[in-house]
Amino acid sequence: MSNANSTAPASRRGAAQRLSEYRRYWDEDRETMDPRLREKKIVERIQNQLRYVYAKVPFYRRHYDAHGFTPDMVTSLEDFTTKVPVITKKMLVADQAEHPPFGSYLGVERSELTRIHGSSGTMGTPTMYGVSRRDWAGAGKFSCMALWCAGLRPDDVVHISFPFTLFFGGWGLLQAAEQLGACTFPVGTMVSTERQIELLQRLDCDVLVATPSYVNHLGTTARAHGIDVRASAISVAVMGGEPGASIPAVRESLHQLWGEVSLIDLAAGSTSEMYPFTTSMGCLESDGGVHLFQDENYTEVVSIEDPNEPVPPGTSGAVVATHLWRDSQPMIRFWTGDEGVIDTEPCPCGRTYPRMPKGVYGRLDDMLLVRGANVYPSAIESVVRGVEGSGGEFRIIVDRPADLDEITVEVERDAALATDRAPALQATLQEQFKNALGVRVAIRVVEPATFEQQTFKARRVIDRRSSS
Amino acid sequence: MSNANSTAPASRRGAAQRLSEYRRYWDEDRETMDPRLREKKIVERIQNQLRYVYAKVPFYRRHYDAHGFTPDMVTSLEDFTTKVPVITKKMLVADQAEHPPFGSYLGVERSELTRIHGSSGTMGTPTMYGVSRRDWAGAGKFSCMALWCAGLRPDDVVHISFPFTLFFGGWGLLQAAEQLGACTFPVGTMVSTERQIELLQRLDCDVLVATPSYVNHLGTTARAHGIDVRASAISVAVMGGEPGASIPAVRESLHQLWGEVSLIDLAAGSTSEMYPFTTSMGCLESDGGVHLFQDENYTEVVSIEDPNEPVPPGTSGAVVATHLWRDSQPMIRFWTGDEGVIDTEPCPCGRTYPRMPKGVYGRLDDMLLVRGANVYPSAIESVVRGVEGSGGEFRIIVDRPADLDEITVEVERDAALATDRAPALQATLQEQFKNALGVRVAIRVVEPATFEQQTFKARRVIDRRSSS
Repeated sequence: MSNANSTAPASRRGAAQRLSEYRRYWDEDRETMDPRLREKKIVERIQNQLRYVYAKVPFYRRHYDAHGFTPDMVTSLEDFTTKVPVITKKMLVADQAEHPPFGSYLGVERSELTRIHGSSGTMGTPTMYGVSRRDWAGAGKFSCMALWCAGLRPDDVVHISFPFTLFFGGWGLLQAAEQLGACTFPVGTMVSTERQIELLQRLDCDVLVATPSYVNHLGTTARAHGIDVRASAISVAVMGGEPGASIPAVRESLHQLWGEVSLIDLAAGSTSEMYPFTTSMGCLESDGGVHLFQDENYTEVVSIEDPNEPVPPGTSGAVVATHLWRDSQPMIRFWTGDEGVIDTEPCPCGRTYPRMPKGVYGRLDDMLLVRGANVYPSAIESVVRGVEGSGGEFRIIVDRPADLDEITVEVERDAALATDRAPALQATLQEQFKNALGVRVAIRVVEPATFEQQTFKARRVIDRRSSS
Repeated sequence: MSNANSTAPASRRGAAQRLSEYRRYWDEDRETMDPRLREKKIVERIQNQLRYVYAKVPFYRRHYDAHGFTPDMVTSLEDFTTKVPVITKKMLVADQAEHPPFGSYLGVERSELTRIHGSSGTMGTPTMYGVSRRDWAGAGKFSCMALWCAGLRPDDVVHISFPFTLFFGGWGLLQAAEQLGACTFPVGTMVSTERQIELLQRLDCDVLVATPSYVNHLGTTARAHGIDVRASAISVAVMGGEPGASIPAVRESLHQLWGEVSLIDLAAGSTSEMYPFTTSMGCLESDGGVHLFQDENYTEVVSIEDPNEPVPPGTSGAVVATHLWRDSQPMIRFWTGDEGVIDTEPCPCGRTYPRMPKGVYGRLDDMLLVRGANVYPSAIESVVRGVEGSGGEFRIIVDRPADLDEITVEVERDAALATDRAPALQATLQEQFKNALGVRVAIRVVEPATFEQQTFKARRVIDRRSSS
C-alpha cells in the first residue's frame, strides 16, 4: 500500500453542503408531519396489523388467545402498550423448532419469498428470516428515506464494509443506496484492511458504511501506514451493528482519526428480526442519536419489569418494536432486549420523529454484542465444553480498551493435560470459537483451579467496561 | 450438524419436469432465431458499438488510430475478426495506471455508475470495474435468460455459495435470480461448510450455485458426516469460476456425490472484464458445455498465433469476446486468454446459439485459476521474495488430486535460517499467501538449493494435471 500515487486531496462535502445542494427531505410530508396526525395514522396501521396477524399468522393467534387479547381491544397507542402481550426471541426460536424452517409466523406462502437470511446460530440452530417480494421491495424503498436522513445523496460513492453473507449485514442498505441513486462499492469484510484503505482513497469514496469498530480500525491502520484519512473524500460514516456511534468517547476518537466527518448512528436496535428495514437513523444536524421512524417501525420504551407499562420520554427502559407494514414475519411488540430512552424534543433538522439521543446503549439479557455479532455466554460455554483438554471453569472478560468492546475468554487447562500442550489447546479453542461464533475472541489458557467453581446461576461474565 | 431432525426426503424436480412445467424459453424469438438472421443483427450491433467506442472512448480511439482501423471498415463478421485489433488485459491495466481509477475506457460519466467492483489485484494494483445504471439493469434483465436456460424457475430456492465481496463473484447471478422471480439465499462463502449443508437441507433449496470445487467439497463433507445429499431437494447445480463443470471426470464424480442432478456450466470465460453479464450457460438437455449468447456477447474462437485469423467450428483456438450492448467499460475484441472450441451442431434444447461443448478448458497465458481466483506465478513470486527467511528458488506445483485443481508452493529455506525455524517460516508464508492471493495454497518449505536456479524465462510452474 503506497500513498505515492494518490491524486490531489479529495474535496470533502461537508454537512452544510449536503443539506443545501439537494432537497432537504426524502419525503417531506411524512418526515415533518404534525406528530398528532402521525399518531392517528400509526394507530390505524397498528389496528390493521393486529387484525392481519390475528387472522393469518397462527403464532400470534395462539399467543393472543392464550392472553385473552383480541385486536378490537386497541383503539389508541396507550391500549397498544398496555394490552398487547410482547413476543420474545425465545418464543420465535421455539416456534421455528416446532415449525421449521420459518416458524408459524411467516405470514405469507413460501412461494412469496424472495430472500432468505439467517442468524449466526450461536445459540444452536440459526433463526431463519424470510422476506416476501413485497417486503423486500418495500424495505428498499423505505430505507432510502433513512439513508437520505444520514446525508447520502445520488452523487455519492458509498463504500460498504458490512458483511454480505448469511446475516442481513449490508444487504438492506446496499439495496437502498442503489435505489437512492448512489454508486455503491459493496466490498464487504473479506478484503484486507490495507486494501480497503487503498480502494477507499483510489475511488474517492464519499460515504463509509461499517461498524464503529471497523471505522476505528480503518483509521488506526491507515495512520500506522502513514496515510492521513482526514484528507480522504469520506465525509459521512454511517455506523451500526454494535453500540458506539452515539457514544461521546467513540465519536471523539473517530473525529481524531477521520477529521470533520459526519458520524451517523444507523440503528436503534441490534436484532435482525426487524431487518432489512432501516427504520432509525441519525441526521446531519445532531451529535449522535437516531430518529425513530415511528410510522414504519413503531418503537416503544417500556418498563424493564413490565412490558405493558409505558415509561415517559426521558426515562430509560426496554425497547419494544413493531412492524407497521411488513407482511412476512411481522414483529408485533417484539421485546428486543435493548435498553434505550426516547426524547421528543424538536431536532434542528426539522424532522418531527422522536429520537433516541443516545442510540441503544445497553442489553437487558446476557447477550453480548461484539463487532456486529451476537455472542451468548451459553454459546461460549458450549465451545469450551466441547474441546478436549479444557478444564472445568472459564471466565468471559468484556473490556473496552479503546472505546469499543473486546472479549477475552480465559479457560482453565485440564489438570490431566501436560503444561506444554497449552499452546495447542489455545490454538484449538481459537479455531473452534471462530467457527462457532463467527467472530474473533482472544483466548487465554490458565492453570487448573484458577477460578472459583460456579454452580447455580453461574456468573462468568466479568464486565470491565466503564459505565460511561 | 445432525440429520436427525430432517423432515421426509425432499422431492426433487428432474430436468424433464423443469422443462415441462413452465414455458420452455425465456425469450423464444431470440433464443431460437434463424442463425442467419441473428448474424445480421449482430453485425448491426457491432457497427454501432464500434462507432460508439471510436467516438466516445479515448482508449479505443487511440488503439484504432495506431492500427489504422476505422469503424466503417466492418460490414461483416469476417471483417470484424480479420480487421479489428484485439485488446488485452495488460493494455487495460496500463490504461488504468495512467488514467485512474477506471482508465480512459469507462465510456460513461462517473456519475452514471451504480456499481463498482474490482479484481483481487494479485498482479499488484486491482483492476476497477465500473458499471453504469443502464448496464447494471441490462445485465440483470438479460441474465434471466441465461438462468432460465440453466433450468432456474420462479418457484426455486437458490442457495448461492459464490462470494459477495470486491470481485463480481455472485453479484450478477443474485440480481438475475431475483428478477427471474426465484427466492434467493445468498449465503456466500463466509459460512462453514457444515452449516451450509445444514441450511441447504433445512430450507429444501432446489438450486445450488457455486464453483465445481465447492459443490464437490459440500458433497464430500456431507458424506463424511453421514449425510446423503442425494436425498436433498437440490436438482440443479450451476457452476463456474473455474473450469470443471464440463469436464467428464468432474461431472462423473459430482453425480456420484449428488445423484441425478443437472450439472450446468455457467461461463465460457474466466475474466471479470465481461461481467456482470452472464452470456453463456449450459442447458438441461446437454451433458456439459455452454451456449454462447452471441447477440449479447459476441464470442469468437481465433488462431492462438494471430487474433485476426478465424478458425473454423470444431477447431480449438483462443477466445475473443465482445460486448454488443454495454456502454460502461465495453470490451470490444477482448483477448480473454482462454482456450476453447465452438460447435454449431443443433442442440436438443432447440436453442440456435452455437455451443462450446467443452466449456473453457485451457489458459493461453501463465495465469492459474484456483477455486475461482486468478493466481499469477508472478504474484506468488512477489510473496516469496517478500518474506524473510525464504531462499532463492521456488516451484509452483499444480495438481488435480481429485478432479479439481490444487496448488502447492515449495519454497527453499534460506541457508542462513536455522532448520528449526522452518515451521515458523511456513506459517508466515501461509498467512502472506492468504492475504495476497485471497485463496489458500499449500506451502512446503524445502532445503536450500533444492531446485536448479532459473534465469531468463523462468519455468517454475510444474503442471501435474493429466491432460484429459
